[in-house]
Amino acid sequence: MVQAKKWILAHHFDGQPKDSDLQLVEETLPDLKDGDVLIEAVFLSVDPYMRPYSARSLKEGDTMIGSQVAQVKESRNANFPKDSYVVANVGWRSHTVTSDESLLRPVPPFGKLPLSYALGILGMPGMTAYFGLLEICHPKEGEVVLVNGAGGAVGSLVGQIAKLKGCKVIAFAGTEEKCRWLREDLKLDVVYNYKKVADQEKAIREAAPDGVDCFFDNVGGEAFTAGIHNMKTFGRVSLCGAISTYNAKGEELRGPYANGIIISRQLKLEGFIVLRWLPKWGDAIKETIGWIQQGKVQTKETVTEGFENMRAAFYGLFTGDNIGKAVVKA
Amino acid sequence: MVQAKKWILAHHFDGQPKDSDLQLVEETLPDLKDGDVLIEAVFLSVDPYMRPYSARSLKEGDTMIGSQVAQVKESRNANFPKDSYVVANVGWRSHTVTSDESLLRPVPPFGKLPLSYALGILGMPGMTAYFGLLEICHPKEGEVVLVNGAGGAVGSLVGQIAKLKGCKVIAFAGTEEKCRWLREDLKLDVVYNYKKVADQEKAIREAAPDGVDCFFDNVGGEAFTAGIHNMKTFGRVSLCGAISTYNAKGEELRGPYANGIIISRQLKLEGFIVLRWLPKWGDAIKETIGWIQQGKVQTKETVTEGFENMRAAFYGLFTGDNIGKAVVKA
Repeated sequence: MVQAKKWILAHHFDGQPKDSDLQLVEETLPDLKDGDVLIEAVFLSVDPYMRPYSARSLKEGDTMIGSQVAQVKESRNANFPKDSYVVANVGWRSHTVTSDESLLRPVPPFGKLPLSYALGILGMPGMTAYFGLLEICHPKEGEVVLVNGAGGAVGSLVGQIAKLKGCKVIAFAGTEEKCRWLREDLKLDVVYNYKKVADQEKAIREAAPDGVDCFFDNVGGEAFTAGIHNMKTFGRVSLCGAISTYNAKGEELRGPYANGIIISRQLKLEGFIVLRWLPKWGDAIKETIGWIQQGKVQTKETVTEGFENMRAAFYGLFTGDNIGKAVVKA
Repeated sequence: MVQAKKWILAHHFDGQPKDSDLQLVEETLPDLKDGDVLIEAVFLSVDPYMRPYSARSLKEGDTMIGSQVAQVKESRNANFPKDSYVVANVGWRSHTVTSDESLLRPVPPFGKLPLSYALGILGMPGMTAYFGLLEICHPKEGEVVLVNGAGGAVGSLVGQIAKLKGCKVIAFAGTEEKCRWLREDLKLDVVYNYKKVADQEKAIREAAPDGVDCFFDNVGGEAFTAGIHNMKTFGRVSLCGAISTYNAKGEELRGPYANGIIISRQLKLEGFIVLRWLPKWGDAIKETIGWIQQGKVQTKETVTEGFENMRAAFYGLFTGDNIGKAVVKA
């Protein structure tokens, strides 16, 4: 019998998350039956989508949802042998007993790359960047790509893939450290610290006087409006996230209707959840591994130590201090 | 030498249009040179798009833009013989001398249908409905289509084409007369008078508990928000107009950001201007003529008499009293 820990949504978030909204509880796991595995979290993912998802799909008392890289500690299931590693969609749990194979997939063959990449560049955030940019924006050589939240797990890869496709990239991030990385290491063309820019719309216009072809929006709110007003006719907008609005309330959730400019510029906007392309993840992960091995793309992680610090790591997403992918080492 | 009249944008509109914003002026037309035609307006179009277009693209003192059906009164251009009829994009003018053939196209062969249809169901508004619905929403048999502004030139045809494609149609209009027409004559499935509906979002949900597949938005603002919140996953939204916001100012132009729901429901939104499909108008007009002749679609017009009443007819669009296409008989 294993004593496990998990984080539950004690109260639905209302505006800024409070410590009392998420609660660490213990549970005793059952003995394994045929088909079961016992897995132990090695790395856990915290991602911005968990905030709106909890409001839409969780009840108070439910375990927080999320993915982890876990090691199989005991197995009565031949598909998942003892000591192997899996990516498991089992939520914020230290240990899990399950026979539900739909929640588990073997970690892809990474070679020497860190296991945690399965939660970042070689997992959901990486695939979000890959498909959200390529399948919705269809960037072409010589076009201008705008990406915000560019210092994060998704945005940093969007910017790099756009460069690989021969685009000019305008990027917004929220710390000097992120901006330096994007500018100096990733060689993005124009990088702004949005906290130091008085007028984002004007800043984009200065960087792209002829307008933006492709806009990958992680931020929503004012950043969305600033981008939309700089789109070229027939521009494509990939709506991936809206982190600036996730903790907002009331008036902060309101902005100018964008319909007028969407119509006059004949823009196409599409929201997406990356699981729609799940059958194509394997090939995209292989391609991304190749890019990493050839030095064509880089990634960064912010690692928080300790399962008991998951809440702090999650709340930290909304302060914007994390660079790259935020993961928790159990 | 012909004494002509034209309407100019004396002052840019600011909120509700004022009489002093548009001014009727006289001008003396030049004698015809080789290649010129003199045309006389027979019917003139007033359309909602003229309001945002004027802000974007006209200077104070410019002639108001728009189309008319005109008769060639004198011709020194073999392509446009005397007495023939043309659709002319020459603005709000009683008479025009021009050699610019790009502004003129012969009225299509309508048979016995009224010439004014070239400004409505067989012209820009009709094509807007046809392509905006079919090319952006791709409605399939059995799907649910939502259209607002459904008593107007565009919306009424959207509803009817959706019915022809085997869809269930939910329509919003703003007068009892319009609603009766849509319900009794056009046989749309659920018709609401939005002025009598306290909660549009709830009304749509009652009419389509499983959600909306295709949303053709002529209205914007609150009507847009109400529609978006009822979309099914992978729903398609055709952004055609935003008449509810054209005369609005300040706070009225702000609403809740829709990004969250666009992402979680994976919606596709596209704004358009119907001229992008100009090469395909001919076939679509032929098909529409067939539908009219077979009694499969109907149209209505609100005709205002007198060129001097163009301003009143235009301002009337924003009160919502006109049923069907608003035209002015010169």
